[in-house]
Amino acid sequence: MSTEPGSRRRGVAETSAAIERAAIDLVDEHGYDQVTVDMICHAAGISQRTFFNHFKTKDAALLGTDEPVIDQQAAREFIVSDGPLLAEAAGLVRIEPGSLPADPTLLVRRITAVSQNPALLARQMERLAAIEAELRQILELRLRQDALRDGADEAELADLPEQAEIITHLLAGLMRYVGLSWARRAADDPAGPIDADRLGERLERVIGKLG
Amino acid sequence: MSTEPGSRRRGVAETSAAIERAAIDLVDEHGYDQVTVDMICHAAGISQRTFFNHFKTKDAALLGTDEPVIDQQAAREFIVSDGPLLAEAAGLVRIEPGSLPADPTLLVRRITAVSQNPALLARQMERLAAIEAELRQILELRLRQDALRDGADEAELADLPEQAEIITHLLAGLMRYVGLSWARRAADDPAGPIDADRLGERLERVIGKLG
Repeated sequence: MSTEPGSRRRGVAETSAAIERAAIDLVDEHGYDQVTVDMICHAAGISQRTFFNHFKTKDAALLGTDEPVIDQQAAREFIVSDGPLLAEAAGLVRIEPGSLPADPTLLVRRITAVSQNPALLARQMERLAAIEAELRQILELRLRQDALRDGADEAELADLPEQAEIITHLLAGLMRYVGLSWARRAADDPAGPIDADRLGERLERVIGKLG
Repeated sequence: MSTEPGSRRRGVAETSAAIERAAIDLVDEHGYDQVTVDMICHAAGISQRTFFNHFKTKDAALLGTDEPVIDQQAAREFIVSDGPLLAEAAGLVRIEPGSLPADPTLLVRRITAVSQNPALLARQMERLAAIEAELRQILELRLRQDALRDGADEAELADLPEQAEIITHLLAGLMRYVGLSWARRAADDPAGPIDADRLGERLERVIGKLG
């Protein structure tokens, strides 16, 4: 994408968005390995200095400023809930859109780029790893509530940390599925939001078959 | 690690193993980014030419020749089994040790290195991606058997491909857990094999809590 110069007059969020869009466009066109920071700067009509004010690396520009974070209110409700555990746990993680305007098209193309480029996927997993420890802790608190409610014995309580770790890994796999299936759906209908109820129902059916 | 020269007299498998060991040793000592093919050659007492006869890249030497493959006999039994689905599915993937002598210590250190280096993790995920499509197909066949046995309707049958995809992603998360917990246990007791029964029991308990 080529944009007009005069980035001084743009806001910070707008410049970030322009850089992200240029980066994804270039990867679409030339492939991940071929794209350089110079190319991104040229396409976005900005200086290298401006680029590095917004992003540390090419990968950061491609992944954007949207960080996955834990919804703390949802976490508190989750810990004492007796609803479906895995489906509810999937709702704990949300993408913090920062100050960027919502741009579903960009997000779809980013998810596609990430799923196709191992280097980007690795960076994205590093971001998720940052919240994995917190997820494990929240899951353990929830398991403990459930276990106490059911009058579990000492042996069962002692096993909960390991169970929380297994569920954290299952959840990581589930989040990858949600991201990919969302990207597929959004590619067909960019305006269509993800249908959380439908995901929940399907997940219930699947879980019923795992054991 | 530094080994004796005279690699011409070593077998292919032995040379590969020496290269892999040297590569992991160097990453342990200097960190992934610092290690070069030159350093590996020096430590293993071989020429660059010998290195490239065995491995295409530094990453390949670190990941070794052990490819994850689908156990085809297990897959056939799995499709018609009515046992616990996820635990049985975890048994479909095994590491093909090629012609290398079993070296659990090396495998433990490799798993640790992979889990700590995003670039290696990405390469390992590329390898797994190669068998993901096949896993999804096997899971769908199994789900279809179960559904037909239960007299499922058309709508349920039509939903099975999507269910198979969800389970494939859950399985990828589970395999990461198994690898990491195996590495942790083996670090305490390198000779101790993984306890598949214990994993199966724990998994059953966890699955019972997901819905």
